Amino acid sequence: MYSSYDVIVVGAGHAGCEAASAAATMGSSVLLITMNMQTIAQMSCNPAMGGVAKGQIVREVDALGGLSGIISDKSMIQFRMLNRSKGPAMWSPRCQSDRNVFAWEWRKALESNRNIDFWQDTVNEVLVKDGRITGVKTSLGVEFIAKSVVLTNGTFLNGKMFIGEKVFGGGRTAERSATGLTEQLIGLGFESGRMKTGTPPRVDGRSLNYDLMEEQLGDEKPGKFSYTDTPALTKQRSCWVTYTNQAVHDELKTGFDKSPMFTGRIKGLGPRYCPSVEDKINRFADKDRHQIFVEPEGWDTVEIYVNGFSTSLPETVQYNALRKIPGFENVRMFRPGYAVEYDFFPPTQLKTTLETQLVHNLFFAGQINGTTGYEEAACQGLMAGINAHRNAYEEAEFTIKRSEGYIGVLIDDLITKGTEEPYRMFTSRAEYRTLLRQDNADLRLTEKGYAIGLASQERYDTMTAKRAGIAELTNSIRTAKVKPEEINSWLETKGSALLREKSSFYTLLKRPEIEQEDVKNLLKLVADMPEIRVGEEVIEQTVIEIKYEDYLNREKQNADKLDKWENLSINPTFDYDRLKALSFEGKEKLKRLRPSTIGQASRISGVSPSDVSILLVYMGR
Amino acid sequence: MYSSYDVIVVGAGHAGCEAASAAATMGSSVLLITMNMQTIAQMSCNPAMGGVAKGQIVREVDALGGLSGIISDKSMIQFRMLNRSKGPAMWSPRCQSDRNVFAWEWRKALESNRNIDFWQDTVNEVLVKDGRITGVKTSLGVEFIAKSVVLTNGTFLNGKMFIGEKVFGGGRTAERSATGLTEQLIGLGFESGRMKTGTPPRVDGRSLNYDLMEEQLGDEKPGKFSYTDTPALTKQRSCWVTYTNQAVHDELKTGFDKSPMFTGRIKGLGPRYCPSVEDKINRFADKDRHQIFVEPEGWDTVEIYVNGFSTSLPETVQYNALRKIPGFENVRMFRPGYAVEYDFFPPTQLKTTLETQLVHNLFFAGQINGTTGYEEAACQGLMAGINAHRNAYEEAEFTIKRSEGYIGVLIDDLITKGTEEPYRMFTSRAEYRTLLRQDNADLRLTEKGYAIGLASQERYDTMTAKRAGIAELTNSIRTAKVKPEEINSWLETKGSALLREKSSFYTLLKRPEIEQEDVKNLLKLVADMPEIRVGEEVIEQTVIEIKYEDYLNREKQNADKLDKWENLSINPTFDYDRLKALSFEGKEKLKRLRPSTIGQASRISGVSPSDVSILLVYMGR
Ligand SMILES: Cc1cc2nc3c(=O)[nH]c(=O)nc-3n(C[C@H](O)[C@H](O)[C@H](O)COP(=O)(O)OP(=O)(O)OC[C@H]3O[C@@H](n4cnc5c(N)ncnc54)[C@H](O)[C@@H]3O)c2cc1C
Ligand SMILES: Cc1cc2nc3c(=O)[nH]c(=O)nc-3n(C[C@H](O)[C@H](O)[C@H](O)COP(=O)(O)OP(=O)(O)OC[C@H]3O[C@@H](n4cnc5c(N)ncnc54)[C@H](O)[C@@H]3O)c2cc1C
Repeated sequence: MYSSYDVIVVGAGHAGCEAASAAATMGSSVLLITMNMQTIAQMSCNPAMGGVAKGQIVREVDALGGLSGIISDKSMIQFRMLNRSKGPAMWSPRCQSDRNVFAWEWRKALESNRNIDFWQDTVNEVLVKDGRITGVKTSLGVEFIAKSVVLTNGTFLNGKMFIGEKVFGGGRTAERSATGLTEQLIGLGFESGRMKTGTPPRVDGRSLNYDLMEEQLGDEKPGKFSYTDTPALTKQRSCWVTYTNQAVHDELKTGFDKSPMFTGRIKGLGPRYCPSVEDKINRFADKDRHQIFVEPEGWDTVEIYVNGFSTSLPETVQYNALRKIPGFENVRMFRPGYAVEYDFFPPTQLKTTLETQLVHNLFFAGQINGTTGYEEAACQGLMAGINAHRNAYEEAEFTIKRSEGYIGVLIDDLITKGTEEPYRMFTSRAEYRTLLRQDNADLRLTEKGYAIGLASQERYDTMTAKRAGIAELTNSIRTAKVKPEEINSWLETKGSALLREKSSFYTLLKRPEIEQEDVKNLLKLVADMPEIRVGEEVIEQTVIEIKYEDYLNREKQNADKLDKWENLSINPTFDYDRLKALSFEGKEKLKRLRPSTIGQASRISGVSPSDVSILLVYMGR
Repeated sequence: MYSSYDVIVVGAGHAGCEAASAAATMGSSVLLITMNMQTIAQMSCNPAMGGVAKGQIVREVDALGGLSGIISDKSMIQFRMLNRSKGPAMWSPRCQSDRNVFAWEWRKALESNRNIDFWQDTVNEVLVKDGRITGVKTSLGVEFIAKSVVLTNGTFLNGKMFIGEKVFGGGRTAERSATGLTEQLIGLGFESGRMKTGTPPRVDGRSLNYDLMEEQLGDEKPGKFSYTDTPALTKQRSCWVTYTNQAVHDELKTGFDKSPMFTGRIKGLGPRYCPSVEDKINRFADKDRHQIFVEPEGWDTVEIYVNGFSTSLPETVQYNALRKIPGFENVRMFRPGYAVEYDFFPPTQLKTTLETQLVHNLFFAGQINGTTGYEEAACQGLMAGINAHRNAYEEAEFTIKRSEGYIGVLIDDLITKGTEEPYRMFTSRAEYRTLLRQDNADLRLTEKGYAIGLASQERYDTMTAKRAGIAELTNSIRTAKVKPEEINSWLETKGSALLREKSSFYTLLKRPEIEQEDVKNLLKLVADMPEIRVGEEVIEQTVIEIKYEDYLNREKQNADKLDKWENLSINPTFDYDRLKALSFEGKEKLKRLRPSTIGQASRISGVSPSDVSILLVYMGR
């Protein structure tokens, strides 16, 4: 009945939106089919983007030409750079979002892409012929034809929600679940599993006593996610911090006998790293309190997200426990927290492009792959969208290496190791995390995004200008000399050793007590410095590269070495005990898992980059 | 578990929002329970407020202190005063709304009322003790206690949606239905019925060719709904008009054998006055075209509402027929139209306050009473909310007479006559429609709203100032004399007879060729006029009252007479044939229905006010 498409994207969550946008921007005709056009880009859980490792992902998505960064910038109500006190590899941008604005900005962005059509409906069948996708069929019985199909069903496949002893069918509160599709995919030979996640209660901000909590302000100079010229925030809303206590825990415990998790009614595995509050007090029985972040849901709503209090205990238990939290004495709930259990497809069934091994041109992205989190979903959607387009146009696959981005780490982890619990990104998963910083995602990835027609010319020009600026500034700094009289009085204020003679500006910068914020002042003091017109970002980047030069060089070499020896095979009977220098955990894992290549060895969690180096040295490389 | 409330409102549609706001503003503690807090004040169907008779209702709601007018003003994208070419009794304000903004403004307004709490859940039981409501029970099993309960379930009770031969459970597209409540109410002794309504497909505005349609601009000087100081629009979006044709009708007919209505699968009665397009071409087979309004869904979306094309034919038939409409040749659909069938409760089971006769302090409002339309729902919600509050505080009932407002007409119609098809307001339903104009709703009702603590002091002050202004201006006009030399040249431009001598300004104004817009000019010309500082509204009102003076006086007398003789009884064996002057239709109806009082006689549709006068004359009054 309707026209056929290059790419069909099923589901308009974070994965689906990025997939549709990417394929359409690259030139595919795209049909986005989703159950409810009013819930496009709905944030199912916390109203926030970014955070540790996740913020890096958003910046990578942005650098490649995805939209999550731009949309986050347009809809944020607070911005914080997490981990500022640690090294730049750990710096992680995070924002609090206006839930409504976020969704509406995505919708506007998708509508403004002329290559995207929309259809509100539920897909319950993929059409396959000779091992190749040909389209989808919906619950209305409509068949749509396409060259590639991307499934991004999130938590909706046979979704079931739990609150205490009650169970409701549905993918998200007050939304239906999607049935039929899992069963059909199993019929085609796919393997599926069950996972669970949860969400905290929402409460009425007017009923809280903020005097009993700590205010958490946004950054004084709020940053942003996108490398494009989105504006930074000029005003922000605060979050608040409070804590559970023994009384809260005792109240929660009264519901344990009705907990869907503890009583085994939920079969799916939950996220170990994002546990429910009942999980926390159960597993960390010695901790007498847990942090609660009190987060507003938008600019102009009183709805509050109780971060850290995810739960599926009976709603009366939730309510009674909440009331024991300082500041929550008179709390009024809008709705209780709940757990959701859903089907996923172990991602070991995928290729690096997120195409399924079983059905040509069928892609899976997002929570359907056993991941959790908006950012994890968004980046998979982007990669699947890109490759769905490239497959449709018979172009080569597009992938990102572990040493190039968190996106590379995530996809490699998923397809090689699979995941037993909802997979979430951490900096510790990346062996080259000092290279994969939030500040250099554009330098790492925009060229790649540009080469495939996703990142715009403007984006590319901005990045190359930045790159040129860094080169120029680095060069100037390397050659500039500083005279003691120019700088000693300033050095004194910093408690840094004074200069005796004209010295290299470059070595001065390496002093740890001279921080990035100082460098701008410093640049002004140095007469020898040529006039340079460079932005903050260039300075930041240059300083990081100089300050951490040795470290970064070592990492780069490691990465190159690993790239080179990726396929070097290891004798299956190798005696790891002979290598005394290996870390204890690394040795144990290697002995147990017996990887067949250096590449595989390097990706075992617990096997450190230095363990790999030791192996390579022993093998004569 | 939770605190108890004065008033619980179930459902946050147009009825529920007004009910909650009214009761809370008057001082009740209110709990608003709704299935999904994300869909508060969702416009289920067309993105528009007001229209003929409906616009008057919105102004009445506003005059009493309800919020629909203010919210409409804040969310409109186009305003038109319909029927400007007819007399002022027919003038009807109508706006095109931004669907999202409308819903969000309602949510903000409710959140900003400290007396309103929220709970997201489905009510499936009302708690009743000794014939009196005590609270509700939800699907989570939570019981909430209240003195009064207002049910506003809209189309959700056992809602079923139909598209061609497919049936889905649900109250609105992609939303669940509410089950259990109807059955329980029947158990309590209530009678229920089934009705249906429908909605057209939504399409992609980017796929339409507007060159083939007529543009429909907003008013040059856009008006608004609220008597408060909401700002008027400064820019507007256009709508467009196109038509069906024989080819469209032929396509539609190919689906008739699969129509859920024609094949009898939908049992509920649909709105005769708001028919589906298949109904139209079926019932008016001689009409070769029907008008289609192409209406944008908001400021910044490409989604289009195809007004006039409501249908539940199979989606392929919808699509093929749409494509035959001029401008729709390349149309892309977002989603098909559908019909929805739902339970309602015949409103003859209610009192004038919308309290049920069966259960004390239980109220029904909105579509659950067999009405259709946002405005009809909103005004019922307002009245039920007011009376739920007053019952909770043991205050006297609050009602509006038929001669005071369309709201009075609507409620009186519902509770005395019931309704066999979805009830919609028309000007013809009001016997005193010249009195019930959109321009004087404040003068009619604000005092009443103020007396019960709903309309604010400000509102009341504005109204009394207007009233005083009208009195002053009327008085000046009555006494002012105009000299020929002051005015004749102007009269000439209007083609109006010249003055020979100093004349009364008052009689001049009665000339039909002198229109309201002229009066401002005229006022400036008359030397004899005292300096008056009056706004547009005062002038408008004064002019209407003067121009239509005799007519309005007659109507007022009629209304007073009827009020007086409301309970005058008519002999059940009265021989109507003796009264030759009765209208044919009036006589037939009177003979058939044999009303027992003059009041009842006057409310029979077909019995005109003059028929009633004849009866009264005969009875010697
Ligand atoms: C209750 C809950 C709690 C969560 N808690 C956390 C948390 O604490 N931390 C965390 O990091 N993440 C959490 N998440 C996960 C996070 O919301 C997801 O990881 C993320 O939204 C996944 O994005 P996605 O695009 O894969 O899927 P989703 O955002 O779920 O979007 C899926 C989309 O697909 C549509 N869809 C599904 N099936 C079909 C079909 N058959 N046909 C058409 N359309 C379809 C849906 O309507 C929806 O638009 C939670 C999710 C839920 C529901
Ligand atoms: C498909 C469709 C087409 C329509 N077409 C037209 C038309 O052409 N012309 C016209 O004038 N009108 C039309 N209408 C009707 C118009 O939308 C309604 O008259 C109006 O919205 C009724 O307002 P309401 O407040 O009574 O109910 P609704 O707007 O339906 O709101 C009901 C609310 O109650 C909630 N709710 C329901 N049951 C429960 C429960 N048990 N517990 C908690 N919450 C509950 C729902 O979630 C919802 O928020 C149509 C409606 C639909 C659905």
